[in-house]
Amino acid sequence: MQLRKFRIKLGKINHIFISHLHGDHIFGLFGLISSFSLLGRKSNLHIYGPDMLEELILDHLKYFQGDLSFHIAFHKIQTRRSALIFQDSKTEVYTIPLKHRIPTCGFLVKEKSGTRNIKKEVIEKYNLSIREIVSIKEGADYTASDGQVIPNYELTLPAFRPRSYAYCSDTAYHEEIIDYIKNVDLMYHETTFLNEDLNLATETTHSTSRQAAELAMKAGVGKLLIGHFSSRYKHLEVFEQEARAVFEESYAVNDGDVFTVEQQRES
Amino acid sequence: MQLRKFRIKLGKINHIFISHLHGDHIFGLFGLISSFSLLGRKSNLHIYGPDMLEELILDHLKYFQGDLSFHIAFHKIQTRRSALIFQDSKTEVYTIPLKHRIPTCGFLVKEKSGTRNIKKEVIEKYNLSIREIVSIKEGADYTASDGQVIPNYELTLPAFRPRSYAYCSDTAYHEEIIDYIKNVDLMYHETTFLNEDLNLATETTHSTSRQAAELAMKAGVGKLLIGHFSSRYKHLEVFEQEARAVFEESYAVNDGDVFTVEQQRES
Repeated sequence: MQLRKFRIKLGKINHIFISHLHGDHIFGLFGLISSFSLLGRKSNLHIYGPDMLEELILDHLKYFQGDLSFHIAFHKIQTRRSALIFQDSKTEVYTIPLKHRIPTCGFLVKEKSGTRNIKKEVIEKYNLSIREIVSIKEGADYTASDGQVIPNYELTLPAFRPRSYAYCSDTAYHEEIIDYIKNVDLMYHETTFLNEDLNLATETTHSTSRQAAELAMKAGVGKLLIGHFSSRYKHLEVFEQEARAVFEESYAVNDGDVFTVEQQRES
Repeated sequence: MQLRKFRIKLGKINHIFISHLHGDHIFGLFGLISSFSLLGRKSNLHIYGPDMLEELILDHLKYFQGDLSFHIAFHKIQTRRSALIFQDSKTEVYTIPLKHRIPTCGFLVKEKSGTRNIKKEVIEKYNLSIREIVSIKEGADYTASDGQVIPNYELTLPAFRPRSYAYCSDTAYHEEIIDYIKNVDLMYHETTFLNEDLNLATETTHSTSRQAAELAMKAGVGKLLIGHFSSRYKHLEVFEQEARAVFEESYAVNDGDVFTVEQQRES
């Protein structure tokens, strides 16, 4: 229902990352898988999650007549150490070990380092062949017809700085994750409780708003996104206030909110 | 999420009736059961549904640590014949056999016939004892101190007419159900398709808006509520128009809509 509400194209979803097997983090999967099949999906769906997720889903599917229209590829992940669990030409996804009542991990999504980009005007100016363009992209200088050598840095623009996003839910305050989230552009971190309920947070292995902000500050992240607020609170704006007192760039978020990290070239 | 959105008190839900084991009719159960347990529910939850529903839910629950805070009483129902599956002092619930790809039944919720109600002014006028009141409620006449006999119908008001609601989803057009839904005050009937897609409705054992309206007319129901519209249609107002051309008292409904059937005394 949330995907439909925010007009997210189901066909664009090919990889699903599940942090842990608590209901509020997986019950939506059944409806989503069912919708994919009703819509006649053909391409593989990759699901990454802790031990038992595959069994849980397969056990469930056996009660429904008819096969799915597509194949599900399950990828079992370890939640105790960080590992590269997905990559394509542009992106890598790593697990982030979290501290919760049951095996749980977050996910770090990183762009791969790009190469320098050739300037468009250079191609025209020297009437470059494909072979020359490839060579320059790989770092070569260019020798013009008059014998002048133009150094690579004049022919190209710096690569784009790889952007990164860390998703950390659900977890107690856990400084060990700073190594993994250092300097990410965006970090989502759960803040189930306010600091006045620190004891509840500790008991239930969740975090307070202030704790998430402290972690964000220590890790030097760009922006902190907070959510997963307990329904015991009526006034959610206090979460943002509490976090901002520690880390100014804190934002309380709702399903469907969009935060864009602009592309910037390395200097 | 829908229950929360419409501010329905979870604690008031004690009996859940499941028509059939298709995802759009049961996936919400897991989150609801989980929420009940998180909220510390103690009282029994009764779930009525076709064969395999109990196994499906128990299979699912075994993946979650910790026991539920409450007991689930499963009531397996036959979908091929109508049966009384629930009653308390005021209400009865019967199954309505429907025609769908898998075993499916609707539900008829009926108030029990009430007794005539004693008029308040009569109690004062004759200074009636509890025993006399009970006796009059049971149909007795009253002999006043002067020997005059006041007939029961002068002492009492007619009973309230029992109200009734039939829920019919999912189903192909199925005239056999008219026996069960005759003269109900409200009938919800699925209308997945418009009449222009009658062939699709037949193929998938669903109904068109016109079919639901014809059934409502033949059964003499009070109001027809229609829903379960296929996502293939952009303009949902056509469903209501198509139904009203056959049966004026047709209403396209959304989650959370409320239709009240007023209490009326028998004449």
